[in-house]
Amino acid sequence: MVELNIVNLLMVLLAAWLGGIFANRIGFPSILGELLIGIMLGPALFGILETSDALNILAEVGILFLMAYIGMEINFKDLGKASWAGFLAAIGGFVVPFALGYYTILFFDGTQLAGLFVGIAVGVTSLATKSRILVDLKLLDTRIAYVLMAGALISDTLALIIFAGIIGFVDAGSVDSIGLAWVAGKAILYFCLAVSIGIYIFPLLGKLLTKAKLTGRTLLFGILVIIVLGFSELAELAGLHGILGSFMAGLFIREGIFSRQVLKDVTGVFHDVSIGFLAPIFFVTAGFHVTLEIFQTDLALLILIIVGAVVGKILGTTLFYLPSGYGWREGFTIGTGMNGRGAVEIIIAGIGLQMGIISQEIFSILVFMAISTTLTVPIFLTWTTNWLKKRGELVKQAARNGYLILGANPLGLYIAKQLAEQSEVILIDYNKDLVNEAYAQGLKAIYGNGLREDAFEEADALSKNTFIALTGNSEINLLSAQLAYNSFYIPNRIVLVSPVEDGAGVNLLDHMDASSMFANKTDLVPWSYKISTHDFKESIEKVNKEITTRNWVKKNSNSKDILPILILDETGHKRPFHYKEIIRPKESVIYLQ
Amino acid sequence: MVELNIVNLLMVLLAAWLGGIFANRIGFPSILGELLIGIMLGPALFGILETSDALNILAEVGILFLMAYIGMEINFKDLGKASWAGFLAAIGGFVVPFALGYYTILFFDGTQLAGLFVGIAVGVTSLATKSRILVDLKLLDTRIAYVLMAGALISDTLALIIFAGIIGFVDAGSVDSIGLAWVAGKAILYFCLAVSIGIYIFPLLGKLLTKAKLTGRTLLFGILVIIVLGFSELAELAGLHGILGSFMAGLFIREGIFSRQVLKDVTGVFHDVSIGFLAPIFFVTAGFHVTLEIFQTDLALLILIIVGAVVGKILGTTLFYLPSGYGWREGFTIGTGMNGRGAVEIIIAGIGLQMGIISQEIFSILVFMAISTTLTVPIFLTWTTNWLKKRGELVKQAARNGYLILGANPLGLYIAKQLAEQSEVILIDYNKDLVNEAYAQGLKAIYGNGLREDAFEEADALSKNTFIALTGNSEINLLSAQLAYNSFYIPNRIVLVSPVEDGAGVNLLDHMDASSMFANKTDLVPWSYKISTHDFKESIEKVNKEITTRNWVKKNSNSKDILPILILDETGHKRPFHYKEIIRPKESVIYLQ
Repeated sequence: MVELNIVNLLMVLLAAWLGGIFANRIGFPSILGELLIGIMLGPALFGILETSDALNILAEVGILFLMAYIGMEINFKDLGKASWAGFLAAIGGFVVPFALGYYTILFFDGTQLAGLFVGIAVGVTSLATKSRILVDLKLLDTRIAYVLMAGALISDTLALIIFAGIIGFVDAGSVDSIGLAWVAGKAILYFCLAVSIGIYIFPLLGKLLTKAKLTGRTLLFGILVIIVLGFSELAELAGLHGILGSFMAGLFIREGIFSRQVLKDVTGVFHDVSIGFLAPIFFVTAGFHVTLEIFQTDLALLILIIVGAVVGKILGTTLFYLPSGYGWREGFTIGTGMNGRGAVEIIIAGIGLQMGIISQEIFSILVFMAISTTLTVPIFLTWTTNWLKKRGELVKQAARNGYLILGANPLGLYIAKQLAEQSEVILIDYNKDLVNEAYAQGLKAIYGNGLREDAFEEADALSKNTFIALTGNSEINLLSAQLAYNSFYIPNRIVLVSPVEDGAGVNLLDHMDASSMFANKTDLVPWSYKISTHDFKESIEKVNKEITTRNWVKKNSNSKDILPILILDETGHKRPFHYKEIIRPKESVIYLQ
Repeated sequence: MVELNIVNLLMVLLAAWLGGIFANRIGFPSILGELLIGIMLGPALFGILETSDALNILAEVGILFLMAYIGMEINFKDLGKASWAGFLAAIGGFVVPFALGYYTILFFDGTQLAGLFVGIAVGVTSLATKSRILVDLKLLDTRIAYVLMAGALISDTLALIIFAGIIGFVDAGSVDSIGLAWVAGKAILYFCLAVSIGIYIFPLLGKLLTKAKLTGRTLLFGILVIIVLGFSELAELAGLHGILGSFMAGLFIREGIFSRQVLKDVTGVFHDVSIGFLAPIFFVTAGFHVTLEIFQTDLALLILIIVGAVVGKILGTTLFYLPSGYGWREGFTIGTGMNGRGAVEIIIAGIGLQMGIISQEIFSILVFMAISTTLTVPIFLTWTTNWLKKRGELVKQAARNGYLILGANPLGLYIAKQLAEQSEVILIDYNKDLVNEAYAQGLKAIYGNGLREDAFEEADALSKNTFIALTGNSEINLLSAQLAYNSFYIPNRIVLVSPVEDGAGVNLLDHMDASSMFANKTDLVPWSYKISTHDFKESIEKVNKEITTRNWVKKNSNSKDILPILILDETGHKRPFHYKEIIRPKESVIYLQ
């Protein structure tokens, strides 16, 4: 009987945790640290840690959960909205390195199957890597970020589909055309079945559970685990690999089936369990299978694969991106951003090793390829985006667009009108007169309660990038921002906090990672009154040195009674003036007095 | 290499899920359904499911997590506050069945060690079983509930300590006195070390993590898993069992180390993962080790153990409870409530089986003992509490006592004064004049912000049973109730909702399982004004037939402008009038007009 060796598991987890945190600290994704520490402490180098049956089993469950979580994070709508440019980048970034990887392996006398596996591994793009880097480089609202995200999604989906196609034939081996048709048929049957279950059975199940009052978090987590394992088993039965099943299950576990709030909780549990506990076991133990002998025996292949991966990804993306019309420089930048390989690559390589399709040497090469390409991303991407910035070619565009403003009072309308010059703005107010006034001023507005989901839904909150709560009641602002955060995941939340609020509101702001509007406690009433009676002056002040909004307020608040409302950048783009903002040189502050 | 057999895991989980839900539906804890379905579908009966290495490993991790979670749920303060009565019940309910179990095994020629193991298993009391039943039987605010909870806590702690004492000697075997001293020394050393780490190192760690900004949920979950496994490994090194370590780790993972909110989230993840996924695997597979042959070969022993368990537990509790002075009937009732055995018993029996201390037959007997005693609890407890109720001996007393009222406005003070006749009441207000007014009226009040944790802490919110938010601002009431719920776990939350609130507030009420004060939307201002100018009359109306508060309001609201504030029961006890209340026959409604 296999027993759990606690100390082994403990050491692996501790190593993973330390490696992950160290990697994070220096700006890289945790997986990089986990792989490196696995190589270092595992048999390859120091031999302190070793694999065990318990680790393998937990790692396998971890991969299934991780793939399900990756699936949950992919939104069909996002995929649907993925632009032509994202599609081009994904195809180019996949096909060219895939071909290079494939032919390199064949050139070195590898099997066709090994070539295909390496091709997929080289073609994949890592998603997790990027979002962190995009935040660090403050690129989240640029077109590059949008294309990168969409590109990675498409590329991952593509890689998994091709992987599914290949894996079906591995077990079958070399068979006649009827056998091949049977393999393909099974795979297609599986996809049809999975999609039907996802689209038709899941909502029924959700209704059934709600009816039976089985809506608790823990219960739902249990059933989601069962669904994920069920899809995995179905995929295995169809001759595909279990990870394809859990990924598909994740895709279909969506809102509408379960309540937004509970689903968010349960998705969080999947996230914590896979990324905080099980998946790191897989990545550390993946390092155990690495052999350092390749640096002597297979150095040429190692270098060729890595160079092929980097050059193929960047050039492929640049080339295929040309028809987008956004210029080769943006394509090149996107190529550097898509150059990372992460979880999905290591998982595919691990499956290849486990099935005996690729050798330990090639697996090791693929791990080092993942490590080195991931290392390049922040460095290359910093260079290329700075280069674009300097040339003034860094185009802004967010996947989520525009503003949702709660409160169509005079101040709200005043700010909304200016923001609406470049962005989509929609207002919500519970006062019909104010809503009509908004319409009269040419703004979109919805009559509804800012504490209710239906009003948010009507305002298409899921597509909005920034939520601004501008009612005179801080508590309503806070509650509403919480709703925007918890149920509609609006990435930026800015809240007006009134001066009567004593720290509590600010505490809550921190808790929900929101920012305070005007970077200061502000009483709405006098300003709204001034605006409605036209008793105010709008001024603009250019900033010469980078300054935080709070310091700007400190510097300017003593002399006169002013209200900074917007920041105007060089391109004429306006953004709200709030606590978590920095005013850069040559930008201006628009303020009322 | 051991591979994960998805279909096996899937079937076990599905079985566990269905069994658990079925048991829940008919009023029993999930573990009962999980054990039964394991026996039914496992080798004992239909042989559809079978154990596997993967299942064993996941189950073992599950037990460690579950014990950690059980530890997390035990509050030192609660243990410290456990009354003399609870202590008596715990001792009596443990010692008598322990002795019966031990001597029964010896009588049947079992080893001393087996006797001790069976003794512990028979002596244990299940915690999870009861809280659900207490809610169903509406006993949560009675002295019985309080004693039951404290008793189960003490009994579990006692059982685990004795288990620790025994397990240390198992590996050592029969050794000389120096060897025994070494075993005992190691165990004591372990406890000292674990306590020191818990008390001194954990807070340091918490500070360090906060300083390093490592406060994310996922990261914290990772480190808690490492801590739990670390404590388990330490326990193993000291010759004790890993579950003792994870239990101790859970005990010390407390507030103060991490922020309340994050800790609540992470505790939730432990709960979901252990109770929703891993532990059910253990309980279903525990059923696999059951043999039904005992009904032929060991029927006498089976019956003796079960009868001894039931009679020993109930009589032991009744006897030892006598010195409390609360009467033998209450002791008997508590005995029937403590009669269930659950997770801890099965875990201990499983360890005994795994270590070869008890045979498969005795293990099977212990499983059936757990099942049958658990079955008795709702039945017996319903009988005995009804019997007490009829005799008028069901004494009210809640572990958490008294009211925390936000808003010391005239209406708040008026209600507070009446509630303070029997219960402890403390008010919070942000207006110093109102706080002083409260003091002048002989009430305890705190000057503080109802949206801040510090005010709640000053008001000793953790010991309060009911939170009433009575400010004129519904949003503040809601936010504050949320804080009361999320950070201070106050079980009852009653919120004044003003008429301007349009459904949203009510939605939020549901979400946080709160009730609306006065069972109706109410405008605070006119009533506060009436009270401060003494322009009102207090009336009282007796109810003859059971009626919900909302129906009472419907019936009475048409005729006159009244505000029902309290319900007065036969014993002269007053409780707030709110939406989720029922007025029973012979109770009265106190209302203003």
